[in-house]
Amino acid sequence: MTPQSPFPIDHIGIAVADLSEAIAHYTSVFGQGPDHLETLETQGVSVAFFTTPTASIELLAPFGDLSPMAKFLAHKGPGLHHIAYLVPQEQYLLEIKRLTDLGLQPLTPAPTLGAKGKQVQFFHPKSHLGVLMELCSYA
Amino acid sequence: MTPQSPFPIDHIGIAVADLSEAIAHYTSVFGQGPDHLETLETQGVSVAFFTTPTASIELLAPFGDLSPMAKFLAHKGPGLHHIAYLVPQEQYLLEIKRLTDLGLQPLTPAPTLGAKGKQVQFFHPKSHLGVLMELCSYA
Repeated sequence: MTPQSPFPIDHIGIAVADLSEAIAHYTSVFGQGPDHLETLETQGVSVAFFTTPTASIELLAPFGDLSPMAKFLAHKGPGLHHIAYLVPQEQYLLEIKRLTDLGLQPLTPAPTLGAKGKQVQFFHPKSHLGVLMELCSYA
Repeated sequence: MTPQSPFPIDHIGIAVADLSEAIAHYTSVFGQGPDHLETLETQGVSVAFFTTPTASIELLAPFGDLSPMAKFLAHKGPGLHHIAYLVPQEQYLLEIKRLTDLGLQPLTPAPTLGAKGKQVQFFHPKSHLGVLMELCSYA
Protein backbone atom coordinates (compact mmCIF):
# COMPACT_ATOMS: atom_id res chain seq x y z
CA MET A 1 0.00 0.00 0.00
CA THR A 2 1.27 3.48 -0.89
CA PRO A 3 0.43 6.22 1.61
CA GLN A 4 -2.20 8.61 0.20
CA SER A 5 -0.11 11.76 0.57
CA PRO A 6 -0.68 14.72 0.77
CA PHE A 7 -2.30 14.32 4.15
CA PRO A 8 -4.40 17.10 5.67
CA ILE A 9 -2.76 19.71 7.87
CA ASP A 10 -4.18 18.90 11.30
CA HIS A 11 -2.78 21.83 13.24
CA ILE A 12 -0.11 24.50 13.42
CA GLY A 13 1.93 24.60 16.62
CA ILE A 14 2.75 28.00 18.09
CA ALA A 15 5.24 28.49 20.93
CA VAL A 16 4.06 30.87 23.65
CA ALA A 17 5.70 31.96 26.88
CA ASP A 18 2.56 32.32 29.00
CA LEU A 19 -0.32 30.00 28.16
CA SER A 20 -3.03 31.93 30.03
CA GLU A 21 -2.06 35.19 28.35
CA ALA A 22 -1.94 33.48 24.95
CA ILE A 23 -5.33 31.83 25.46
CA ALA A 24 -6.83 35.23 26.29
CA HIS A 25 -5.26 36.76 23.16
CA TYR A 26 -6.45 34.00 20.79
CA THR A 27 -9.90 33.92 22.38
CA SER A 28 -10.23 37.61 21.44
CA VAL A 29 -8.85 37.05 17.94
CA PHE A 30 -11.05 34.02 17.22
CA GLY A 31 -14.11 35.19 19.13
CA GLN A 32 -14.25 31.83 20.91
CA GLY A 33 -12.20 29.93 23.44
CA PRO A 34 -10.06 26.81 23.14
CA ASP A 35 -11.76 23.44 22.68
CA HIS A 36 -9.02 21.38 24.34
CA LEU A 37 -6.50 21.93 27.16
CA GLU A 38 -3.87 19.42 28.21
CA THR A 39 -0.50 19.11 29.95
CA LEU A 40 1.89 16.62 28.38
CA GLU A 41 4.44 16.00 31.12
CA THR A 42 6.55 13.68 28.96
CA GLN A 43 6.80 16.32 26.22
CA GLY A 44 7.32 19.16 28.71
CA VAL A 45 4.45 21.29 27.42
CA SER A 46 1.02 22.57 28.33
CA VAL A 47 -1.15 23.04 25.26
CA ALA A 48 -4.40 24.68 24.16
CA PHE A 49 -6.18 23.93 20.88
CA PHE A 50 -8.37 26.38 18.96
CA THR A 51 -10.52 25.07 16.12
CA THR A 52 -10.98 26.75 12.74
CA PRO A 53 -13.06 25.32 9.88
CA THR A 54 -9.86 23.82 8.38
CA ALA A 55 -6.74 23.25 10.49
CA SER A 56 -6.45 23.96 14.23
CA ILE A 57 -4.06 26.15 16.21
CA GLU A 58 -2.10 24.50 19.03
CA LEU A 59 -0.55 26.86 21.55
CA LEU A 60 2.39 25.29 23.40
CA ALA A 61 3.94 26.66 26.60
CA PRO A 62 6.86 25.13 28.53
CA PHE A 63 6.03 22.76 31.40
CA GLY A 64 8.82 21.85 33.80
CA ASP A 65 12.43 22.94 34.02
CA LEU A 66 13.78 20.67 31.28
CA SER A 67 11.16 21.53 28.68
CA PRO A 68 12.48 21.66 25.11
CA MET A 69 9.92 24.42 24.60
CA ALA A 70 11.74 26.61 27.13
CA LYS A 71 14.91 26.14 25.08
CA PHE A 72 13.05 26.99 21.86
CA LEU A 73 11.64 30.18 23.41
CA ALA A 74 15.05 31.21 24.75
CA HIS A 75 16.64 30.81 21.31
CA LYS A 76 13.89 31.95 18.95
CA GLY A 77 11.25 33.68 21.03
CA PRO A 78 7.51 33.04 20.74
CA GLY A 79 6.07 32.24 17.31
CA LEU A 80 5.43 29.53 14.76
CA HIS A 81 6.81 26.16 15.92
CA HIS A 82 5.62 23.22 13.79
CA ILE A 83 3.14 21.91 11.21
CA ALA A 84 1.30 18.66 11.92
CA TYR A 85 -0.25 16.39 9.29
CA LEU A 86 -2.91 13.83 10.22
CA VAL A 87 -2.32 10.35 8.84
CA PRO A 88 -4.83 7.47 9.05
CA GLN A 89 -3.63 4.77 11.44
CA GLU A 90 -3.28 2.09 8.75
CA GLN A 91 -0.90 4.30 6.75
CA TYR A 92 0.97 5.85 9.68
CA LEU A 93 4.09 3.72 9.95
CA LEU A 94 4.32 3.44 6.16
CA GLU A 95 4.30 7.22 5.81
CA ILE A 96 6.94 7.63 8.53
CA LYS A 97 9.11 5.12 6.65
CA ARG A 98 8.47 6.82 3.30
CA LEU A 99 9.53 10.24 4.63
CA THR A 100 12.55 8.74 6.41
CA ASP A 101 13.58 7.06 3.15
CA LEU A 102 13.30 10.48 1.45
CA GLY A 103 15.86 11.85 3.89
CA LEU A 104 13.70 13.39 6.61
CA GLN A 105 15.20 12.71 10.05
CA PRO A 106 12.86 11.42 12.79
CA LEU A 107 13.50 13.12 16.14
CA THR A 108 12.72 9.93 18.05
CA PRO A 109 13.24 6.27 17.04
CA ALA A 110 9.48 5.64 17.21
CA PRO A 111 6.28 7.66 17.65
CA THR A 112 5.51 8.98 21.13
CA LEU A 113 2.30 9.97 22.94
CA GLY A 114 1.07 13.46 22.03
CA ALA A 115 -1.98 15.59 22.75
CA LYS A 116 -5.51 14.14 22.54
CA GLY A 117 -4.08 10.62 22.93
CA LYS A 118 -2.59 10.71 19.45
CA GLN A 119 0.68 9.20 18.34
CA VAL A 120 3.15 11.84 17.20
CA GLN A 121 6.35 11.61 15.18
CA PHE A 122 8.46 14.71 14.66
CA PHE A 123 11.01 15.23 11.89
CA HIS A 124 14.04 17.49 12.29
CA PRO A 125 13.72 20.94 10.66
CA LYS A 126 17.25 20.61 9.24
CA SER A 127 15.97 17.77 7.06
CA HIS A 128 12.81 19.67 5.94
CA LEU A 129 13.98 23.13 4.82
CA GLY A 130 13.84 24.64 8.29
CA VAL A 131 10.35 23.44 9.22
CA LEU A 132 9.67 21.12 12.16
CA MET A 133 7.14 18.60 10.84
CA GLU A 134 4.85 16.37 12.88
CA LEU A 135 2.93 13.36 11.66
CA CYS A 136 0.11 12.49 14.03
CA SER A 137 -2.43 9.68 14.09
CA TYR A 138 -5.26 8.49 16.28
CA ALA A 139 -4.34 5.09 17.74
CA MET B 1 -22.77 42.63 11.10
CA THR B 2 -20.26 40.83 13.31
CA PRO B 3 -17.50 38.94 11.47
CA GLN B 4 -18.03 35.17 11.79
CA SER B 5 -14.63 34.42 13.35
CA PRO B 6 -12.83 32.02 13.57
CA PHE B 7 -12.14 32.01 9.85
CA PRO B 8 -10.54 28.99 8.15
CA ILE B 9 -6.78 28.78 7.87
CA ASP B 10 -6.24 29.21 4.12
CA HIS B 11 -2.51 28.55 3.98
CA ILE B 12 0.75 28.52 5.88
CA GLY B 13 3.57 30.57 4.38
CA ILE B 14 7.07 29.08 4.44
CA ALA B 15 10.20 31.09 3.55
CA VAL B 16 12.63 29.26 1.29
CA ALA B 17 15.94 30.36 -0.22
CA ASP B 18 15.68 28.49 -3.53
CA LEU B 19 12.18 27.99 -4.92
CA SER B 20 13.08 25.25 -7.43
CA GLU B 21 14.88 23.21 -4.78
CA ALA B 22 11.98 23.69 -2.36
CA ILE B 23 9.38 22.70 -4.97
CA ALA B 24 11.33 19.50 -5.63
CA HIS B 25 11.50 18.75 -1.90
CA TYR B 26 7.79 19.32 -1.25
CA THR B 27 6.80 17.44 -4.39
CA SER B 28 8.60 14.41 -2.94
CA VAL B 29 7.09 14.90 0.51
CA PHE B 30 3.53 15.38 -0.79
CA GLY B 31 3.75 12.94 -3.68
CA GLN B 32 2.37 15.62 -6.00
CA GLY B 33 3.50 18.94 -7.43
CA PRO B 34 2.35 22.50 -6.77
CA ASP B 35 -1.04 23.61 -8.10
CA HIS B 36 -0.13 27.29 -8.48
CA LEU B 37 3.04 29.26 -9.30
CA GLU B 38 3.26 33.04 -9.35
CA THR B 39 5.72 35.92 -9.05
CA LEU B 40 4.45 38.91 -7.08
CA GLU B 41 6.79 41.70 -8.09
CA THR B 42 5.17 44.23 -5.77
CA GLN B 43 5.62 41.90 -2.78
CA GLY B 44 9.12 40.86 -3.88
CA VAL B 45 8.40 37.13 -3.83
CA SER B 46 7.98 34.13 -6.09
CA VAL B 47 5.53 31.63 -4.65
CA ALA B 48 4.37 28.03 -5.08
CA PHE B 49 1.21 26.59 -3.54
CA PHE B 50 0.71 22.94 -2.58
CA THR B 51 -2.80 21.76 -1.72
CA THR B 52 -3.69 19.46 1.17
CA PRO B 53 -7.25 18.39 2.07
CA THR B 54 -7.41 21.23 4.63
CA ALA B 55 -5.06 24.24 4.45
CA SER B 56 -2.44 24.81 1.72
CA ILE B 57 1.31 25.36 1.91
CA GLU B 58 2.71 28.50 0.26
CA LEU B 59 6.45 28.47 -0.40
CA LEU B 60 7.90 32.00 -0.70
CA ALA B 61 11.29 32.83 -2.17
CA PRO B 62 12.82 36.31 -2.55
CA PHE B 63 12.32 38.10 -5.88
CA GLY B 64 14.40 41.20 -6.57
CA ASP B 65 17.12 42.91 -4.58
CA LEU B 66 14.85 44.74 -2.17
CA SER B 67 12.68 41.77 -1.23
CA PRO B 68 11.55 41.73 2.41
CA MET B 69 11.81 37.94 2.11
CA ALA B 70 15.58 38.22 1.53
CA LYS B 71 15.80 40.21 4.77
CA PHE B 72 13.71 37.59 6.61
CA LEU B 73 15.96 34.77 5.35
CA ALA B 74 19.11 36.67 6.30
CA HIS B 75 17.84 37.19 9.85
CA LYS B 76 15.94 34.00 10.58
CA GLY B 77 16.83 31.50 7.88
CA PRO B 78 14.32 29.36 5.99
CA GLY B 79 11.21 28.16 7.83
CA LEU B 80 7.71 29.03 8.93
CA HIS B 81 6.76 32.58 7.92
CA HIS B 82 3.05 33.35 8.34
CA ILE B 83 -0.49 32.01 8.80
CA ALA B 84 -3.25 33.21 6.46
CA TYR B 85 -6.96 33.13 7.25
CA LEU B 86 -9.56 33.37 4.49
CA VAL B 87 -12.34 35.89 5.10
CA PRO B 88 -15.45 36.27 2.92
CA GLN B 89 -15.37 39.53 0.98
CA GLU B 90 -18.42 41.02 2.70
CA GLN B 91 -16.77 40.60 6.12
CA TYR B 92 -13.20 41.44 5.11
CA LEU B 93 -12.88 45.12 6.04
CA LEU B 94 -14.97 44.57 9.17
CA GLU B 95 -12.62 41.81 10.33
CA ILE B 96 -9.54 43.94 9.62
CA LYS B 97 -11.11 46.71 11.72
CA ARG B 98 -12.08 44.31 14.51
CA LEU B 99 -8.53 42.93 14.79
CA THR B 100 -7.04 46.42 14.58
CA ASP B 101 -9.36 47.55 17.39
CA LEU B 102 -8.12 44.54 19.43
CA GLY B 103 -4.58 45.89 19.14
CA LEU B 104 -3.21 43.99 16.14
CA GLN B 105 -1.07 46.28 13.98
CA PRO B 106 -1.69 46.27 10.20
CA LEU B 107 1.57 46.29 8.22
CA THR B 108 0.02 48.46 5.50
CA PRO B 109 -2.70 51.14 5.72
CA ALA B 110 -4.96 49.09 3.45
CA PRO B 111 -5.04 45.61 1.86
CA THR B 112 -2.68 44.99 -1.07
CA LEU B 113 -2.71 42.59 -4.02
CA GLY B 114 -1.47 39.08 -3.13
CA ALA B 115 -1.24 35.69 -4.81
CA LYS B 116 -4.17 34.30 -6.85
CA GLY B 117 -5.57 37.82 -7.23
CA LYS B 118 -6.58 37.93 -3.58
CA GLN B 119 -6.51 40.93 -1.31
CA VAL B 120 -4.06 40.48 1.55
CA GLN B 121 -3.63 42.32 4.83
CA PHE B 122 -0.74 41.43 7.11
CA PHE B 123 -0.55 42.13 10.85
CA HIS B 124 2.74 42.67 12.67
CA PRO B 125 4.02 39.66 14.64
CA LYS B 126 4.86 41.92 17.59
CA SER B 127 1.14 42.54 18.01
CA HIS B 128 0.19 38.83 17.69
CA LEU B 129 2.52 36.92 20.04
CA GLY B 130 5.31 36.58 17.49
CA VAL B 131 3.21 35.29 14.60
CA LEU B 132 2.86 37.16 11.29
CA MET B 133 -0.85 36.92 10.43
CA GLU B 134 -2.44 37.43 7.04
CA LEU B 135 -6.11 37.98 6.30
CA CYS B 136 -6.88 37.23 2.66
CA SER B 137 -10.05 37.51 0.60
CA TYR B 138 -11.17 36.95 -2.97
CA ALA B 139 -12.23 40.29 -4.45
